[in-house]
Amino acid sequence: MRYEELTIEGRNAVLEAFRSGRPVDRVFLQDGCKDGPIQSIAREARKHDTMIRFVARERLDQMSETGKHQGVIAYAAAYQYAEIDDMLKAAEEKGEPPFLILLDGIEDPHNLGAIIRTANLAGAHGVVIPKQRAVGLTATVARTSAGAINYTSVAKVTNLSQTIEDLKKRGLWFVCADMGGEQMYRLNLKGPIGLVIGNEGSGVSRLVREKCDMIAQIPMRGDIDSLNASVAAGVLAYEIVRQRME
Amino acid sequence: MRYEELTIEGRNAVLEAFRSGRPVDRVFLQDGCKDGPIQSIAREARKHDTMIRFVARERLDQMSETGKHQGVIAYAAAYQYAEIDDMLKAAEEKGEPPFLILLDGIEDPHNLGAIIRTANLAGAHGVVIPKQRAVGLTATVARTSAGAINYTSVAKVTNLSQTIEDLKKRGLWFVCADMGGEQMYRLNLKGPIGLVIGNEGSGVSRLVREKCDMIAQIPMRGDIDSLNASVAAGVLAYEIVRQRME
Repeated sequence: MRYEELTIEGRNAVLEAFRSGRPVDRVFLQDGCKDGPIQSIAREARKHDTMIRFVARERLDQMSETGKHQGVIAYAAAYQYAEIDDMLKAAEEKGEPPFLILLDGIEDPHNLGAIIRTANLAGAHGVVIPKQRAVGLTATVARTSAGAINYTSVAKVTNLSQTIEDLKKRGLWFVCADMGGEQMYRLNLKGPIGLVIGNEGSGVSRLVREKCDMIAQIPMRGDIDSLNASVAAGVLAYEIVRQRME
Repeated sequence: MRYEELTIEGRNAVLEAFRSGRPVDRVFLQDGCKDGPIQSIAREARKHDTMIRFVARERLDQMSETGKHQGVIAYAAAYQYAEIDDMLKAAEEKGEPPFLILLDGIEDPHNLGAIIRTANLAGAHGVVIPKQRAVGLTATVARTSAGAINYTSVAKVTNLSQTIEDLKKRGLWFVCADMGGEQMYRLNLKGPIGLVIGNEGSGVSRLVREKCDMIAQIPMRGDIDSLNASVAAGVLAYEIVRQRME
Protein backbone atom coordinates (compact mmCIF):
# COMPACT_ATOMS: atom_id res chain seq x y z
CA MET A 1 0.00 0.00 0.00
CA ARG A 2 1.24 3.48 -0.81
CA TYR A 3 -0.03 6.80 0.41
CA GLU A 4 0.00 10.31 -0.97
CA GLU A 5 -0.68 13.64 0.69
CA LEU A 6 -3.70 15.37 -0.70
CA THR A 7 -5.21 18.81 -0.83
CA ILE A 8 -8.97 18.78 -1.37
CA GLU A 9 -10.50 21.97 -2.75
CA GLY A 10 -14.04 23.16 -3.30
CA ARG A 11 -17.24 22.79 -1.35
CA ASN A 12 -18.65 19.59 -2.82
CA ALA A 13 -15.31 17.82 -2.81
CA VAL A 14 -14.59 18.63 0.86
CA LEU A 15 -18.12 17.81 1.98
CA GLU A 16 -18.02 14.53 0.07
CA ALA A 17 -14.67 13.66 1.69
CA PHE A 18 -16.19 14.07 5.16
CA ARG A 19 -19.34 12.16 4.27
CA SER A 20 -17.45 9.23 2.83
CA GLY A 21 -15.48 8.92 6.08
CA ARG A 22 -12.09 9.90 4.63
CA PRO A 23 -9.78 11.17 7.40
CA VAL A 24 -9.36 14.95 6.99
CA ASP A 25 -6.51 16.55 8.94
CA ARG A 26 -7.36 20.24 8.68
CA VAL A 27 -9.92 22.49 7.03
CA PHE A 28 -9.25 26.08 5.97
CA LEU A 29 -12.33 28.25 5.54
CA GLN A 30 -12.45 31.74 4.10
CA ASP A 31 -12.91 34.45 6.74
CA GLY A 32 -16.42 35.86 6.69
CA CYS A 33 -17.97 33.10 4.56
CA LYS A 34 -21.14 32.07 6.35
CA ASP A 35 -23.36 30.54 3.69
CA GLY A 36 -25.06 27.16 3.88
CA PRO A 37 -22.46 24.90 2.30
CA ILE A 38 -19.64 26.45 4.38
CA GLN A 39 -21.65 25.93 7.56
CA SER A 40 -22.31 22.31 6.59
CA ILE A 41 -18.57 21.82 6.17
CA ALA A 42 -17.85 23.45 9.56
CA ARG A 43 -20.46 21.15 11.14
CA GLU A 44 -18.93 18.05 9.55
CA ALA A 45 -15.47 19.18 10.63
CA ARG A 46 -16.61 19.54 14.26
CA LYS A 47 -18.35 16.18 14.12
CA HIS A 48 -15.11 14.55 12.95
CA ASP A 49 -12.84 16.51 15.32
CA THR A 50 -11.09 18.11 12.38
CA MET A 51 -9.16 21.31 13.08
CA ILE A 52 -10.79 24.37 11.47
CA ARG A 53 -8.84 27.50 10.60
CA PHE A 54 -10.35 30.70 9.25
CA VAL A 55 -8.02 32.46 6.83
CA ALA A 56 -8.11 35.34 4.37
CA ARG A 57 -9.09 34.71 0.79
CA GLU A 58 -5.57 35.64 -0.35
CA ARG A 59 -4.15 32.86 1.80
CA LEU A 60 -6.52 30.32 0.23
CA ASP A 61 -5.61 31.57 -3.24
CA GLN A 62 -1.94 30.94 -2.39
CA MET A 63 -2.62 27.46 -1.06
CA SER A 64 -4.88 26.49 -3.95
CA GLU A 65 -3.58 24.12 -6.59
CA THR A 66 -6.66 24.31 -8.77
CA GLY A 67 -7.46 28.02 -8.47
CA LYS A 68 -11.04 27.00 -7.65
CA HIS A 69 -11.19 26.58 -3.88
CA GLN A 70 -14.61 28.26 -3.41
CA GLY A 71 -13.55 29.37 0.07
CA VAL A 72 -12.63 25.88 1.30
CA ILE A 73 -9.42 23.86 1.31
CA ALA A 74 -8.93 20.65 3.28
CA TYR A 75 -5.82 18.59 3.92
CA ALA A 76 -6.71 14.94 3.87
CA ALA A 77 -4.60 12.30 5.53
CA ALA A 78 -4.02 10.57 2.25
CA TYR A 79 -5.54 9.13 -0.85
CA GLN A 80 -4.82 5.48 -0.66
CA TYR A 81 -4.03 3.56 -3.81
CA ALA A 82 -5.76 0.22 -3.92
CA GLU A 83 -4.53 -3.19 -5.02
CA ILE A 84 -6.01 -4.87 -8.08
CA ASP A 85 -6.71 -7.98 -5.95
CA ASP A 86 -9.13 -5.92 -3.87
CA MET A 87 -10.96 -4.81 -7.01
CA LEU A 88 -11.39 -8.42 -8.16
CA LYS A 89 -12.55 -9.35 -4.65
CA ALA A 90 -15.12 -6.52 -4.73
CA ALA A 91 -16.47 -7.83 -8.03
CA GLU A 92 -16.71 -11.33 -6.60
CA GLU A 93 -18.52 -10.12 -3.49
CA LYS A 94 -21.08 -8.32 -5.64
CA GLY A 95 -21.47 -11.43 -7.80
CA GLU A 96 -20.51 -9.43 -10.91
CA PRO A 97 -18.00 -10.22 -13.65
CA PRO A 98 -14.96 -7.97 -13.03
CA PHE A 99 -14.97 -4.65 -14.91
CA LEU A 100 -11.76 -2.60 -14.71
CA ILE A 101 -10.79 0.56 -16.59
CA LEU A 102 -7.07 0.78 -17.44
CA LEU A 103 -5.59 4.11 -18.50
CA ASP A 104 -2.58 3.93 -20.77
CA GLY A 105 -1.00 7.28 -19.99
CA ILE A 106 -3.80 9.80 -19.34
CA GLU A 107 -2.02 13.12 -18.68
CA ASP A 108 -4.83 15.60 -18.10
CA PRO A 109 -6.10 15.62 -14.49
CA HIS A 110 -9.57 16.70 -15.70
CA ASN A 111 -9.76 13.58 -17.84
CA LEU A 112 -8.59 11.31 -15.00
CA GLY A 113 -11.14 12.87 -12.63
CA ALA A 114 -13.96 12.54 -15.16
CA ILE A 115 -13.00 8.90 -15.87
CA ILE A 116 -13.02 7.99 -12.14
CA ARG A 117 -16.46 9.62 -11.98
CA THR A 118 -17.62 7.54 -14.96
CA ALA A 119 -16.07 4.37 -13.49
CA ASN A 120 -18.06 4.90 -10.31
CA LEU A 121 -21.39 5.40 -12.08
CA ALA A 122 -20.88 2.69 -14.70
CA GLY A 123 -20.25 0.21 -11.89
CA ALA A 124 -16.60 -0.51 -12.71
CA HIS A 125 -14.70 -2.16 -9.87
CA GLY A 126 -11.63 -0.01 -10.20
CA VAL A 127 -9.33 2.16 -12.30
CA VAL A 128 -5.72 1.16 -13.04
CA ILE A 129 -3.11 3.77 -13.92
CA PRO A 130 0.62 3.43 -14.68
CA LYS A 131 3.28 4.90 -12.39
CA GLN A 132 5.19 6.60 -15.18
CA ARG A 133 4.17 9.27 -17.70
CA ALA A 134 0.67 9.70 -16.31
CA VAL A 135 -1.14 11.97 -13.88
CA GLY A 136 -1.76 10.59 -10.36
CA LEU A 137 -4.36 11.44 -7.72
CA THR A 138 -3.90 15.21 -7.46
CA ALA A 139 -6.25 17.81 -6.02
CA THR A 140 -7.59 18.63 -9.48
CA VAL A 141 -8.34 14.95 -10.07
CA ALA A 142 -10.16 14.73 -6.74
CA ARG A 143 -12.22 17.85 -7.54
CA THR A 144 -13.16 16.81 -11.07
CA SER A 145 -14.06 13.32 -9.87
CA ALA A 146 -16.92 15.01 -7.94
CA GLY A 147 -16.32 12.79 -4.95
CA ALA A 148 -16.05 9.50 -6.88
CA ILE A 149 -12.41 9.19 -5.79
CA ASN A 150 -13.73 8.40 -2.30
CA TYR A 151 -15.62 5.35 -3.52
CA THR A 152 -13.86 4.01 -6.61
CA SER A 153 -10.51 2.26 -6.11
CA VAL A 154 -7.51 3.40 -8.11
CA ALA A 155 -4.44 1.17 -8.43
CA LYS A 156 -1.02 2.23 -9.70
CA VAL A 157 1.09 -0.31 -11.57
CA THR A 158 4.67 -0.35 -12.85
CA ASN A 159 4.01 -1.99 -16.18
CA LEU A 160 0.55 -1.87 -17.72
CA SER A 161 1.13 -4.54 -20.36
CA GLN A 162 2.48 -6.93 -17.69
CA THR A 163 -0.63 -6.23 -15.58
CA ILE A 164 -2.83 -7.04 -18.59
CA GLU A 165 -0.89 -10.27 -19.11
CA ASP A 166 -1.41 -11.26 -15.44
CA LEU A 167 -5.12 -10.40 -15.50
CA LYS A 168 -5.68 -12.39 -18.69
CA LYS A 169 -4.52 -15.46 -16.76
CA ARG A 170 -7.22 -14.69 -14.23
CA GLY A 171 -9.93 -14.72 -16.84
CA LEU A 172 -10.26 -11.08 -17.93
CA TRP A 173 -10.63 -10.10 -21.57
CA PHE A 174 -9.19 -6.80 -22.73
CA VAL A 175 -10.67 -4.30 -25.12
CA CYS A 176 -9.03 -1.05 -26.17
CA ALA A 177 -10.47 1.87 -28.06
CA ASP A 178 -8.65 2.56 -31.29
CA MET A 179 -9.12 3.36 -34.95
CA GLY A 180 -9.61 0.46 -37.33
CA GLY A 181 -11.18 -1.82 -34.75
CA GLU A 182 -14.47 -3.64 -34.81
CA GLN A 183 -17.66 -1.57 -34.39
CA MET A 184 -18.17 -1.61 -30.60
CA TYR A 185 -21.82 -2.72 -30.87
CA ARG A 186 -20.72 -5.93 -32.56
CA LEU A 187 -18.26 -6.98 -29.84
CA ASN A 188 -19.23 -9.16 -26.90
CA LEU A 189 -18.35 -7.09 -23.83
CA LYS A 190 -20.44 -8.97 -21.27
CA GLY A 191 -17.79 -11.09 -19.55
CA PRO A 192 -14.95 -10.21 -17.14
CA ILE A 193 -13.42 -7.21 -18.88
CA GLY A 194 -10.64 -4.64 -18.82
CA LEU A 195 -11.38 -1.50 -20.84
CA VAL A 196 -8.17 0.23 -21.97
CA ILE A 197 -8.18 3.96 -22.79
CA GLY A 198 -5.13 5.49 -24.47
CA ASN A 199 -3.24 8.73 -24.05
CA GLU A 200 -4.94 11.99 -25.12
CA GLY A 201 -2.53 12.64 -27.98
CA SER A 202 -0.99 9.35 -29.02
CA GLY A 203 -3.69 6.84 -28.15
CA VAL A 204 -3.01 3.32 -26.92
CA SER A 205 0.68 2.35 -27.01
CA ARG A 206 1.72 -0.47 -29.36
CA LEU A 207 2.76 -2.87 -26.58
CA VAL A 208 -0.54 -2.49 -24.75
CA ARG A 209 -2.60 -2.67 -27.94
CA GLU A 210 -0.93 -5.97 -28.87
CA LYS A 211 -2.01 -7.48 -25.54
CA CYS A 212 -5.66 -6.60 -26.09
CA ASP A 213 -8.10 -9.30 -27.21
CA MET A 214 -10.43 -6.84 -28.95
CA ILE A 215 -10.10 -3.41 -30.53
CA ALA A 216 -13.30 -1.40 -30.36
CA GLN A 217 -14.18 1.34 -32.79
CA ILE A 218 -16.63 4.01 -31.70
CA PRO A 219 -18.67 5.06 -34.78
CA MET A 220 -17.16 8.25 -36.22
CA ARG A 221 -19.41 10.21 -38.53
CA GLY A 222 -17.58 13.51 -38.48
CA ASP A 223 -14.54 15.33 -39.78
CA ILE A 224 -12.05 15.06 -36.93
CA ASP A 225 -10.07 12.10 -35.59
CA SER A 226 -11.15 11.25 -32.10
CA LEU A 227 -13.32 12.00 -29.10
CA ASN A 228 -11.96 13.54 -25.92
CA ALA A 229 -10.40 10.70 -23.87
CA SER A 230 -12.89 10.94 -21.00
CA VAL A 231 -15.85 11.05 -23.41
CA ALA A 232 -14.52 7.97 -25.26
CA ALA A 233 -14.12 6.20 -21.89
CA GLY A 234 -17.72 7.12 -21.03
CA VAL A 235 -19.17 5.94 -24.35
CA LEU A 236 -17.34 2.60 -24.13
CA ALA A 237 -18.01 2.06 -20.43
CA TYR A 238 -21.71 2.58 -21.09
CA GLU A 239 -21.66 0.18 -24.04
CA ILE A 240 -20.43 -2.41 -21.49
CA VAL A 241 -23.23 -1.37 -19.10
CA ARG A 242 -25.82 -1.70 -21.90
CA GLN A 243 -24.65 -5.15 -22.93
CA ARG A 244 -24.60 -6.35 -19.33
CA MET A 245 -28.18 -5.10 -18.80
CA GLU A 246 -29.51 -6.90 -21.89
CA MET B 1 -25.43 36.43 -38.40
CA ARG B 2 -23.17 37.54 -35.59
CA TYR B 3 -19.40 37.49 -35.43
CA GLU B 4 -16.87 37.28 -32.63
CA GLU B 5 -13.14 37.91 -32.60
CA LEU B 6 -11.14 34.81 -31.85
CA THR B 7 -7.66 33.88 -30.73
CA ILE B 8 -6.64 30.39 -31.81
CA GLU B 9 -3.81 28.80 -29.83
CA GLY B 10 -1.80 25.63 -30.22
CA ARG B 11 -0.37 23.82 -33.22
CA ASN B 12 -3.21 21.49 -34.13
CA ALA B 13 -5.87 24.12 -33.63
CA VAL B 14 -4.11 26.69 -35.86
CA LEU B 15 -3.27 24.13 -38.53
CA GLU B 16 -6.84 22.85 -38.52
CA ALA B 17 -8.14 26.43 -38.87
CA PHE B 18 -6.06 26.93 -42.03
CA ARG B 19 -6.99 23.56 -43.49
CA SER B 20 -10.69 24.08 -42.96
CA GLY B 21 -10.48 27.35 -44.90
CA ARG B 22 -11.23 29.65 -41.95
CA PRO B 23 -9.93 33.18 -42.64
CA VAL B 24 -6.91 33.83 -40.36
CA ASP B 25 -5.76 37.44 -40.03
CA ARG B 26 -2.36 37.03 -38.41
CA VAL B 27 -0.13 34.28 -37.06
CA PHE B 28 2.40 34.77 -34.27
CA LEU B 29 5.18 32.17 -34.14
CA GLN B 30 7.77 31.78 -31.41
CA ASP B 31 11.22 33.05 -32.41
CA GLY B 32 13.61 30.20 -33.12
CA CYS B 33 10.95 27.48 -33.34
CA LYS B 34 11.72 25.55 -36.50
CA ASP B 35 10.20 22.11 -36.02
CA GLY B 36 7.89 20.35 -38.44
CA PRO B 37 4.47 21.49 -37.20
CA ILE B 38 5.62 25.13 -36.99
CA GLN B 39 6.97 24.97 -40.55
CA SER B 40 3.68 23.47 -41.74
CA ILE B 41 1.87 26.38 -40.14
CA ALA B 42 4.24 28.89 -41.77
CA ARG B 43 3.67 27.18 -45.13
CA GLU B 44 -0.12 27.30 -44.72
CA ALA B 45 0.08 30.95 -43.69
CA ARG B 46 2.07 31.86 -46.83
CA LYS B 47 -0.34 29.89 -48.99
CA HIS B 48 -3.26 31.84 -47.52
CA ASP B 49 -1.46 35.23 -47.59
CA THR B 50 -1.69 35.44 -43.82
CA MET B 51 0.72 37.83 -42.11
CA ILE B 52 3.37 36.01 -40.04
CA ARG B 53 5.15 37.63 -37.11
CA PHE B 54 7.97 36.05 -35.14
CA VAL B 55 7.87 37.05 -31.48
CA ALA B 56 9.57 36.08 -28.22
CA ARG B 57 8.07 33.34 -26.09
CA GLU B 58 7.29 35.90 -23.36
CA ARG B 59 5.15 37.86 -25.79
CA LEU B 60 3.17 34.72 -26.68
CA ASP B 61 2.75 33.93 -22.98
CA GLN B 62 1.27 37.39 -22.49
CA MET B 63 -1.07 37.05 -25.45
CA SER B 64 -2.19 33.55 -24.53
CA GLU B 65 -5.64 33.02 -23.03
CA THR B 66 -5.21 29.31 -22.45
CA GLY B 67 -1.57 29.25 -21.28
CA LYS B 68 -0.99 26.46 -23.83
CA HIS B 69 0.02 28.20 -27.05
CA GLN B 70 2.80 25.73 -27.98
CA GLY B 71 4.64 28.53 -29.78
CA VAL B 72 1.71 29.49 -32.04
CA ILE B 73 -1.11 31.98 -31.72
CA ALA B 74 -3.38 33.01 -34.59
CA TYR B 75 -5.99 35.73 -34.83
CA ALA B 76 -8.89 34.47 -36.84
CA ALA B 77 -11.28 36.80 -38.61
CA ALA B 78 -14.11 35.41 -36.58
CA TYR B 79 -15.93 32.37 -35.43
CA GLN B 80 -19.21 32.65 -37.08
CA TYR B 81 -22.30 31.60 -35.21
CA ALA B 82 -24.68 29.68 -37.39
CA GLU B 83 -28.44 29.84 -37.69
CA ILE B 84 -30.58 26.90 -36.65
CA ASP B 85 -32.25 26.98 -40.08
CA ASP B 86 -28.91 26.13 -41.67
CA MET B 87 -28.55 23.13 -39.35
CA LEU B 88 -31.97 21.82 -40.35
CA LYS B 89 -31.10 22.40 -44.01
CA ALA B 90 -27.84 20.45 -43.56
CA ALA B 91 -29.80 17.53 -42.11
CA GLU B 92 -32.23 17.64 -45.02
CA GLU B 93 -29.44 17.71 -47.59
CA LYS B 94 -27.86 14.62 -46.01
CA GLY B 95 -31.25 12.91 -45.93
CA GLU B 96 -30.99 12.44 -42.16
CA PRO B 97 -33.51 13.23 -39.41
CA PRO B 98 -32.29 16.41 -37.65
CA PHE B 99 -30.09 15.84 -34.58
CA LEU B 100 -29.26 18.94 -32.53
CA ILE B 101 -27.52 19.22 -29.16
CA LEU B 102 -28.84 22.05 -26.95
CA LEU B 103 -26.83 23.18 -23.95
CA ASP B 104 -28.80 24.67 -21.09
CA GLY B 105 -26.06 26.79 -19.51
CA ILE B 106 -22.74 24.94 -19.88
CA GLU B 107 -20.17 27.15 -18.11
CA ASP B 108 -16.90 25.26 -18.44
CA PRO B 109 -15.14 25.91 -21.77
CA HIS B 110 -13.53 22.44 -21.62
CA ASN B 111 -16.99 20.90 -21.53
CA LEU B 112 -18.28 23.04 -24.40
CA GLY B 113 -15.19 22.15 -26.49
CA ALA B 114 -15.55 18.43 -25.74
CA ILE B 115 -19.29 18.53 -26.57
CA ILE B 116 -18.69 20.23 -29.95
CA ARG B 117 -16.09 17.51 -30.60
CA THR B 118 -18.66 14.82 -29.70
CA ALA B 119 -21.37 16.53 -31.79
CA ASN B 120 -19.07 16.41 -34.79
CA LEU B 121 -18.24 12.71 -34.43
CA ALA B 122 -21.75 11.61 -33.48
CA GLY B 123 -23.06 13.24 -36.65
CA ALA B 124 -25.15 15.93 -34.95
CA HIS B 125 -26.13 18.79 -37.26
CA GLY B 126 -25.34 21.51 -34.77
CA VAL B 127 -24.99 22.74 -31.21
CA VAL B 128 -27.28 25.40 -29.73
CA ILE B 129 -26.18 27.53 -26.77
CA PRO B 130 -27.95 30.34 -24.90
CA LYS B 131 -26.64 33.91 -24.98
CA GLN B 132 -26.84 34.41 -21.23
CA ARG B 133 -25.13 32.58 -18.37
CA ALA B 134 -23.11 30.27 -20.59
CA VAL B 135 -19.65 30.13 -22.12
CA GLY B 136 -19.34 31.16 -25.79
CA LEU B 137 -16.79 30.27 -28.46
CA THR B 138 -13.56 31.22 -26.69
CA ALA B 139 -10.01 30.16 -27.50
CA THR B 140 -10.16 27.41 -24.88
CA VAL B 141 -13.33 26.06 -26.45
CA ALA B 142 -11.69 26.09 -29.89
CA ARG B 143 -8.62 24.25 -28.56
CA THR B 144 -10.53 21.59 -26.62
CA SER B 145 -12.84 21.02 -29.59
CA ALA B 146 -9.74 19.66 -31.38
CA GLY B 147 -10.74 21.39 -34.60
CA ALA B 148 -14.40 20.32 -34.53
CA ILE B 149 -15.44 23.97 -34.16
CA ASN B 150 -14.41 24.46 -37.79
CA TYR B 151 -16.92 21.89 -39.02
CA THR B 152 -19.79 21.77 -36.54
CA SER B 153 -22.19 24.73 -36.49
CA VAL B 154 -22.91 26.49 -33.22
CA ALA B 155 -25.97 28.75 -32.86
CA LYS B 156 -26.60 31.22 -30.05
CA VAL B 157 -30.19 31.87 -28.98
CA THR B 158 -31.83 34.34 -26.62
CA ASN B 159 -34.30 31.98 -25.03
CA LEU B 160 -33.68 28.24 -25.08
CA SER B 161 -37.17 27.19 -24.07
CA GLN B 162 -38.68 29.40 -26.80
CA THR B 163 -36.29 27.79 -29.31
CA ILE B 164 -37.43 24.34 -28.18
CA GLU B 165 -41.05 25.42 -28.58
CA ASP B 166 -40.35 26.64 -32.15
CA LEU B 167 -38.46 23.50 -33.11
CA LYS B 168 -41.20 21.23 -31.77
CA LYS B 169 -43.53 22.85 -34.31
CA ARG B 170 -41.04 21.83 -36.99
CA GLY B 171 -41.20 18.19 -35.99
CA LEU B 172 -38.35 17.78 -33.50
CA TRP B 173 -38.72 15.79 -30.29
CA PHE B 174 -36.77 16.83 -27.25
CA VAL B 175 -35.01 14.64 -24.72
CA CYS B 176 -33.12 15.91 -21.71
CA ALA B 177 -30.82 14.06 -19.35
CA ASP B 178 -32.02 14.15 -15.78
CA MET B 179 -32.56 12.06 -12.68
CA GLY B 180 -35.83 10.18 -12.40
CA GLY B 181 -36.35 9.80 -16.13
CA GLU B 182 -36.90 6.72 -18.23
CA GLN B 183 -33.92 4.39 -18.78
CA MET B 184 -32.36 5.78 -21.99
CA TYR B 185 -32.26 2.37 -23.70
CA ARG B 186 -36.05 2.15 -23.50
CA LEU B 187 -36.71 5.49 -25.22
CA ASN B 188 -37.18 5.84 -28.95
CA LEU B 189 -34.51 8.32 -30.03
CA LYS B 190 -34.50 7.54 -33.75
CA GLY B 191 -36.55 10.45 -35.11
CA PRO B 192 -35.80 14.18 -35.49
CA ILE B 193 -34.33 15.00 -32.10
CA GLY B 194 -32.95 17.70 -29.86
CA LEU B 195 -30.74 16.41 -27.02
CA VAL B 196 -30.69 18.85 -24.07
CA ILE B 197 -27.74 18.82 -21.64
CA GLY B 198 -28.00 20.81 -18.40
CA ASN B 199 -25.63 23.01 -16.45
CA GLU B 200 -22.66 21.35 -14.68
CA GLY B 201 -23.95 22.14 -11.21
CA SER B 202 -27.69 22.63 -11.38
CA GLY B 203 -28.67 20.43 -14.33
CA VAL B 204 -31.50 21.24 -16.70
CA SER B 205 -33.55 24.29 -15.69
CA ARG B 206 -37.20 23.75 -14.79
CA LEU B 207 -38.57 25.76 -17.73
CA VAL B 208 -36.52 23.82 -20.26
CA ARG B 209 -37.24 20.46 -18.60
CA GLU B 210 -40.97 21.11 -18.83
CA LYS B 211 -40.71 21.63 -22.59
CA CYS B 212 -38.98 18.28 -23.14
CA ASP B 213 -40.97 15.33 -24.48
CA MET B 214 -38.75 12.74 -22.82
CA ILE B 215 -36.47 12.63 -19.81
CA ALA B 216 -33.64 10.15 -20.21
CA GLN B 217 -31.91 8.49 -17.29
CA ILE B 218 -28.39 7.18 -17.83
CA PRO B 219 -28.02 4.02 -15.68
CA MET B 220 -26.28 4.98 -12.42
CA ARG B 221 -24.74 2.11 -10.50
CA GLY B 222 -22.46 4.09 -8.24
CA ASP B 223 -22.32 6.30 -5.20
CA ILE B 224 -22.27 9.81 -6.63
CA ASP B 225 -24.94 11.88 -8.38
CA SER B 226 -24.01 12.53 -11.95
CA LEU B 227 -21.53 12.17 -14.77
CA ASN B 228 -19.41 15.04 -16.01
CA ALA B 229 -21.60 17.10 -18.41
CA SER B 230 -19.50 16.36 -21.49
CA VAL B 231 -19.38 12.63 -20.66
CA ALA B 232 -23.18 12.56 -20.18
CA ALA B 233 -23.57 14.34 -23.55
CA GLY B 234 -21.29 11.73 -25.15
CA VAL B 235 -23.12 8.75 -23.65
CA LEU B 236 -26.53 10.08 -24.73
CA ALA B 237 -25.38 11.23 -28.18
CA TYR B 238 -24.00 7.75 -28.81
CA GLU B 239 -27.21 6.11 -27.64
CA ILE B 240 -28.88 8.14 -30.41
CA VAL B 241 -26.19 6.97 -32.86
CA ARG B 242 -26.70 3.34 -31.79
CA GLN B 243 -30.46 3.49 -32.20
CA ARG B 244 -30.16 5.14 -35.60
CA MET B 245 -27.73 2.43 -36.78
CA GLU B 246 -30.03 -0.42 -35.73
